Amino acid sequence: MTRKDIVTELEPLFYPRGVAIVGASQSFVKIGTMTLLSILIGGFEGGIYPVHPKADRILGLNTYAKFKDLPDDADLVVVCVPASSVASVIEDSIDGGIRAAVIISSGFSEVGKEGKKLQDEVLKIARSGGMRFIGPNCMGMCSSSVKLFALMNMMIPIPGDISFVSQSGTLGTMNMLIASSYGVGFNKFVSSGNEADLKTEDLVEYYSGDQDTKVVLSFMEGVRDGRKFFEMSKEVTKKKPFILLKAGRTKAGAKAASSHTGSLAGSDAINEAAFKQAGIITAKNGEEMLDLVKGFSLLLPPKGRKVGILTAGGGSGVLSADACERMGLEVPALPEEIIEELNKFLPPFWSHGNPIDITASGGIGGSGGADFSAITTCLDFLLQSDEIDSVITMSMDMMDRMETVISNFPPKYKNLSKVVGKMLAPIGGKFTKDLVSVCEKYEKPVVAMGGFESSGMLESYGIPSYSDPERAAFVLSKLAEYGEYLEKTK
Amino acid sequence: MTRKDIVTELEPLFYPRGVAIVGASQSFVKIGTMTLLSILIGGFEGGIYPVHPKADRILGLNTYAKFKDLPDDADLVVVCVPASSVASVIEDSIDGGIRAAVIISSGFSEVGKEGKKLQDEVLKIARSGGMRFIGPNCMGMCSSSVKLFALMNMMIPIPGDISFVSQSGTLGTMNMLIASSYGVGFNKFVSSGNEADLKTEDLVEYYSGDQDTKVVLSFMEGVRDGRKFFEMSKEVTKKKPFILLKAGRTKAGAKAASSHTGSLAGSDAINEAAFKQAGIITAKNGEEMLDLVKGFSLLLPPKGRKVGILTAGGGSGVLSADACERMGLEVPALPEEIIEELNKFLPPFWSHGNPIDITASGGIGGSGGADFSAITTCLDFLLQSDEIDSVITMSMDMMDRMETVISNFPPKYKNLSKVVGKMLAPIGGKFTKDLVSVCEKYEKPVVAMGGFESSGMLESYGIPSYSDPERAAFVLSKLAEYGEYLEKTK
Repeated sequence: MTRKDIVTELEPLFYPRGVAIVGASQSFVKIGTMTLLSILIGGFEGGIYPVHPKADRILGLNTYAKFKDLPDDADLVVVCVPASSVASVIEDSIDGGIRAAVIISSGFSEVGKEGKKLQDEVLKIARSGGMRFIGPNCMGMCSSSVKLFALMNMMIPIPGDISFVSQSGTLGTMNMLIASSYGVGFNKFVSSGNEADLKTEDLVEYYSGDQDTKVVLSFMEGVRDGRKFFEMSKEVTKKKPFILLKAGRTKAGAKAASSHTGSLAGSDAINEAAFKQAGIITAKNGEEMLDLVKGFSLLLPPKGRKVGILTAGGGSGVLSADACERMGLEVPALPEEIIEELNKFLPPFWSHGNPIDITASGGIGGSGGADFSAITTCLDFLLQSDEIDSVITMSMDMMDRMETVISNFPPKYKNLSKVVGKMLAPIGGKFTKDLVSVCEKYEKPVVAMGGFESSGMLESYGIPSYSDPERAAFVLSKLAEYGEYLEKTK
Repeated sequence: MTRKDIVTELEPLFYPRGVAIVGASQSFVKIGTMTLLSILIGGFEGGIYPVHPKADRILGLNTYAKFKDLPDDADLVVVCVPASSVASVIEDSIDGGIRAAVIISSGFSEVGKEGKKLQDEVLKIARSGGMRFIGPNCMGMCSSSVKLFALMNMMIPIPGDISFVSQSGTLGTMNMLIASSYGVGFNKFVSSGNEADLKTEDLVEYYSGDQDTKVVLSFMEGVRDGRKFFEMSKEVTKKKPFILLKAGRTKAGAKAASSHTGSLAGSDAINEAAFKQAGIITAKNGEEMLDLVKGFSLLLPPKGRKVGILTAGGGSGVLSADACERMGLEVPALPEEIIEELNKFLPPFWSHGNPIDITASGGIGGSGGADFSAITTCLDFLLQSDEIDSVITMSMDMMDRMETVISNFPPKYKNLSKVVGKMLAPIGGKFTKDLVSVCEKYEKPVVAMGGFESSGMLESYGIPSYSDPERAAFVLSKLAEYGEYLEKTK
């Protein structure tokens, strides 16, 4: 199947005009009702059609007794009925003109032989009716472009341009929520469940051809067809970054994976070599995955591995240099002409090298409190230089916690809180805006480190921010690796 | 010097009855004024005495023209005047009866030979006057027991039982703020600056004998006297956990360290071996440091390396098993009798092994929405078992973001927000409280994973929480390592 085919074929799944749902009722406790709630609160603007043999209205919506009664625009059905009824529901929905399904219901291959038989039956019916489906035993899917969020746990992410297929629904949805909390959003999401029909590799292939997707993301426990996955991935990574979190990489993990998704995790060394050869960007845990997603969604790969480091306080500079070397990046000496330029405006005790440390005192201005304008000027010099491919800069994103500090002033010093607030104000918005306006002049990646986990402020301006320099360096090294891969395969 | 000596000797530094400050004025822009502000807003309850030749009042306080005029309870002086005046200020303050100093002023050994001369002079005067001091070129200190927070950047942490000495003031204070944001607090903090008099090893020794300190923490770029540090550390770790973030471990980092603190970082391999032999718990970056601080301040070491894993969604279980193996922990098979017990109440499709995965559907109860009581029952069985030394459990700490999701309901579905809120409520407080009450029955360490970076909710009940299972496993492995060390050296 060519890529163009799968993009066309999955249009009813990701861009349905209307969505039917079966398994919702007036009871809130049911997965079907929760999924319908999720569709409603997600704001889907097409038709929403609960199918129910008896109920007249569910959550304020008209219901339909039979699939045949549905309006013509019902392209997709979300299935939440017990396993034993799924086959007939799929059959009826095909007869009713529906072309794609999300089968959330569990009780299939994951519970044993009997379940596997039911699952094979559903697959056979879908195949003969020309229907593609997700699941069974999954947690649902999202398609932000049409505001469709059919998730049984209602963990609705914010929209963005990352598309994600996850062999674990809980892990997928929880990580999307974490990313959402700092402004990193998703375009499409699929909890792939038992993958009876659509498999991780199909969805990755679809995402690679999907115009609304900028970064492809997958959580996977096992590769079903290694050769096919490898060949397909090589095509994907030519077009977009493909970030993969592969679980089950250790013996203990592989054993757990075989119990969870029935996957054969495969040899870690062989997998890793193949992933690398195909240009896949790999993460070994959820944190690395989210860090990569943030970096690749906001930045282009650097031209090389030479990193400039910028801090107001030397300890973070030392840790950043450690992290860069550990991650295979270089911390080159600062060109003499830059040192001379910086001497003109930095305090005499600045570090005179890379990392550039303006020192904590260098962050106190003459005009009343915090002043990090020296940082942005230094950044400009670094980004201008041919000797620097990317920059790690200190984040000043500490205002949230400082506001808590200020709000905790003892009553008798409450009058000082305004003074302190004014002194610290430049740490917040102004510094970030100045930083951004320098970054925008150049195409080189800039990452921030040293603030909180992430407040989303820097990200909203296109600068990924990481609490620890090691995470910043990790992301830069993976961006560099991807840049080198693209260069090599051009 | 014996430990008892240094504890007595540094009492005026950490438990002063009154604090003098020199270098504050009516101008807010000065480091001295900012430090005085920090002392005021921190709530220090002893006398606060600005020393100033001319001003009558500073920030509403009476000032003193000379040190000799100060009340008798002035035990400590905070010095923020230009470098050239520091020697005479120290001399005058000794004459005025002051017994300890924090010299924030910069312009000493860090700027070259002339500065080094000034610094040596200050040291000589202090030595002959029997005064101990912190700095120069530092950012200040804290002592929560007496509510003294003398920090030039006013980044006041919350109180707790960790005591910290940092060779980088910015790194130290920023990390304390991050920890504070999720409820992990500090007892004492010293930004050690140039360490002309009091050095990292002195402060570590002091903390080890200090009754208000439970965990000792240090950020260090260079070991000045390796042999002494090693011998002293062996004594410290017998009594309390000693967590060390050593920077400058790579070539690039060592070069940066030499520019920052003038430290010779030393051979990383030799350092690491010596640290391990002395029972020091090492972190390689700020994130690991904070993760360890949280874990060691809340938990006791496990008896062994066998970890039980508990999730509602298999992917996190697989990643947790991967992480445990990578960190040298074991994920043992579940004893048959526990499997039989769990079969009695878990859904038939639970994982039947370790990791215990109750599955996402297993987290939906019969009584209206989320219900994770099965998790706490499983936890009880795990903690009872001799085959399990510690547990990693999934955190359900997602309410913050879910509240955002709920608040973003489209206007026409606002009426559903109450329903959803009620369904999800058990994810928050009740689940955590149930979890805690099970944990309290046993002495085994339990860590949570899979929620946000940390909201502080779990920590407030004594359960450290980490966004990623790898970080949870890392902390457990270091706890196990420390437990083994204590056992071996008993």
